[in-house]
Amino acid sequence: MSGADLAAALLAEHFEVREGELRIGGVAVSELAQRFGTPLFAYDAAVMRRSYRRLREALQGFAAIHYSVKANPAVPVIALFLEEGAGVEIASIGEYRRARAAGARPEKILFAGPGKRKAELEEAIAGGVGEIHVESFEEITRLEAIGAALGKTLAVALRVNPVAAVQGGAMRMGGKPSAFGFDEESLDDVLAALAACPHLDLVGLHLFAGTQVLDAGVLLAQWGHGLALAREVSQRIGRQLSTVDLGGGLGIPYFQGDAALDLTAIAAGVPALARTVPTGTRVVVEPGRYLAGPAGVYVMAVNAIKRSRGQTFIVTDGGMHHHLAASGNLGQVIKRDYPILAPTRIGDPAAPPVSVVGPLCTPLDTLGRSVALPAVEVDALIAVLQSGAYGPTASPGGFLSHPAPAELLVEGGVPTVLGD
Amino acid sequence: MSGADLAAALLAEHFEVREGELRIGGVAVSELAQRFGTPLFAYDAAVMRRSYRRLREALQGFAAIHYSVKANPAVPVIALFLEEGAGVEIASIGEYRRARAAGARPEKILFAGPGKRKAELEEAIAGGVGEIHVESFEEITRLEAIGAALGKTLAVALRVNPVAAVQGGAMRMGGKPSAFGFDEESLDDVLAALAACPHLDLVGLHLFAGTQVLDAGVLLAQWGHGLALAREVSQRIGRQLSTVDLGGGLGIPYFQGDAALDLTAIAAGVPALARTVPTGTRVVVEPGRYLAGPAGVYVMAVNAIKRSRGQTFIVTDGGMHHHLAASGNLGQVIKRDYPILAPTRIGDPAAPPVSVVGPLCTPLDTLGRSVALPAVEVDALIAVLQSGAYGPTASPGGFLSHPAPAELLVEGGVPTVLGD
Repeated sequence: MSGADLAAALLAEHFEVREGELRIGGVAVSELAQRFGTPLFAYDAAVMRRSYRRLREALQGFAAIHYSVKANPAVPVIALFLEEGAGVEIASIGEYRRARAAGARPEKILFAGPGKRKAELEEAIAGGVGEIHVESFEEITRLEAIGAALGKTLAVALRVNPVAAVQGGAMRMGGKPSAFGFDEESLDDVLAALAACPHLDLVGLHLFAGTQVLDAGVLLAQWGHGLALAREVSQRIGRQLSTVDLGGGLGIPYFQGDAALDLTAIAAGVPALARTVPTGTRVVVEPGRYLAGPAGVYVMAVNAIKRSRGQTFIVTDGGMHHHLAASGNLGQVIKRDYPILAPTRIGDPAAPPVSVVGPLCTPLDTLGRSVALPAVEVDALIAVLQSGAYGPTASPGGFLSHPAPAELLVEGGVPTVLGD
Repeated sequence: MSGADLAAALLAEHFEVREGELRIGGVAVSELAQRFGTPLFAYDAAVMRRSYRRLREALQGFAAIHYSVKANPAVPVIALFLEEGAGVEIASIGEYRRARAAGARPEKILFAGPGKRKAELEEAIAGGVGEIHVESFEEITRLEAIGAALGKTLAVALRVNPVAAVQGGAMRMGGKPSAFGFDEESLDDVLAALAACPHLDLVGLHLFAGTQVLDAGVLLAQWGHGLALAREVSQRIGRQLSTVDLGGGLGIPYFQGDAALDLTAIAAGVPALARTVPTGTRVVVEPGRYLAGPAGVYVMAVNAIKRSRGQTFIVTDGGMHHHLAASGNLGQVIKRDYPILAPTRIGDPAAPPVSVVGPLCTPLDTLGRSVALPAVEVDALIAVLQSGAYGPTASPGGFLSHPAPAELLVEGGVPTVLGD
């Protein structure tokens, strides 16, 4: 599948196109650009809802969904997923505050992260939180002290770094030495430490073996391993766990050749897994990117068109300072193009491939290296799809002191400006 | 040179250490951490001044220095370099506003960047600007229109992308197709376009062949090429150029094995170059990293110490969300460690190497992979040197919604909190 094919497939799956123009949440992209200026991020609320509902259906009878706030921490985005019935997974006190501002009830909140500060734990516990994922012996000590000071028993879940890694995601997160959670083989020590803490109640287990997994078989195998490990821990502690959090890891197609995660295969695989879950144990998955990513479009305007030594560069008013991941600088080893298109010229024949670059004084500020676009003019709009997760908040917004992009959640023809 | 050797050499060159503790601007690092919390960035004003003065001396009789604001755009940092006598180089209207807020006179400001928006050009021209570096035909058209509307003649400099590249920096910026400036071989067309613009006055040339160059010979060769090109352009247009901007590119040592740029060799090489510069032509270099980088220290506190499968992970309260470059995710292909040390335990014997990681839920959040530190405890301070340039403003501060780090400029025992 070429980059243009992926863009076309994503448009067909998620968006409305009218007379060759992309519409987001019922509004023509050119109207959003005119009203809010470029560059901007627009998130289509209906796409978020649909992603959530399809996944919920595929996981029916197996797992509950907690939205991983880090993917897109805008309060109205969190509120949307809460409204759909999701819980949330947070990883800092900033995310906790956002989740509460969005209306999350304490019991819907899972607090994860390898380096929670004491003040963060205190604030979340005082405000109310469902479960805290414990990732180090220091956290066990800190939490026991907080529980003792408050005279409260705190529900904790252990993050475990499995012995055996299941491959297939963009990152392998099991089997190796890790800063995350406790090694599976050190569980005896951890359980002993927890048993000595009268104010901590071990209620759950948290596993996370990969990220950006596009292969349903890999994901099902990871989940199966997680559930087996949960049964083993449950036996060791002599009682049932009330929660098993299988992590996120559900991927979305970004690059040429990526195929979307097959939800039908997931739906077909989960009943066998569900049968291994004891009654009374709640299974959780915590996707972020999967729910928010496809809904987002980064819209830029062409500033200049430069020809240099046989190549054409489309210089836009947006770039890596707003969208680091699309520039290939957020952990990617190989630089590949996100799906990029001219959102008011959909269906127009492509000119020879161009590079799409931003306004920063660095060659790192490249969003597309070989992009099939129609022949565009200055002021034409250029859009990057799959931009709803790890966009502005995961980008160096202060780099070169350009203004922040507008961020919009658009639903039923009404754009809501996001902001703090 | 091992990582620890580099850290020791940098301490010896730039900083005061008293009873095993790093002092920044005359204040013990532990006092800064206590007063302002961790993580924090502290910039030692005296180190900035010394870097500037040494370079000015090396370039005496050859080139003026314009501070490249993008490296560290804090207004008091800009003001410090202005006070020392530098001009500034800016690349956005945001940087223009900061330079003006710092007290830069218009004639001290060079405005560069491949994608300047019309509104940016209008504002800078209305407010006053020394020279505008023209990087595309669209900019020529835009500037002529603005000049005509104002009835003003605008001083412009051409950014030229040389035919021949001089190697040696971390990035090669000449010889290839480029989004920056005009190809040297297209100069006839560019000069014709400029000649047709009665409101534009071609006064200068801008070259930029590399970045993070540590080899004095490479830098001198690049400058020589730039001056030769300037003579050629001057001949073609039949008059002398008043400015030749040779770009930045002066590197600082970040990694094991890096040697500092040899200023003595630079000083020895510039007189020969200076003799080729026609009287009346002003040569400019525009370093940013070189001036601001060595002065900055990123200070974090240890949150947890984890042992996993034979490795030790020091989990700190700071990470890639504040210091993307140190995590190896700002354009680096190979992940290598910035110089990292325990700034209150300088001289203590090293324990076996550890990984230094941040609090984010991603393995990308790794600041050091094999760091020689003394055996530290929770709450101990950990510092990353060479952190004065491309720090918080070049990092994804919103990633996981952690608070922004304090930024301090410290001089004569007095910390000034930086902020917008």
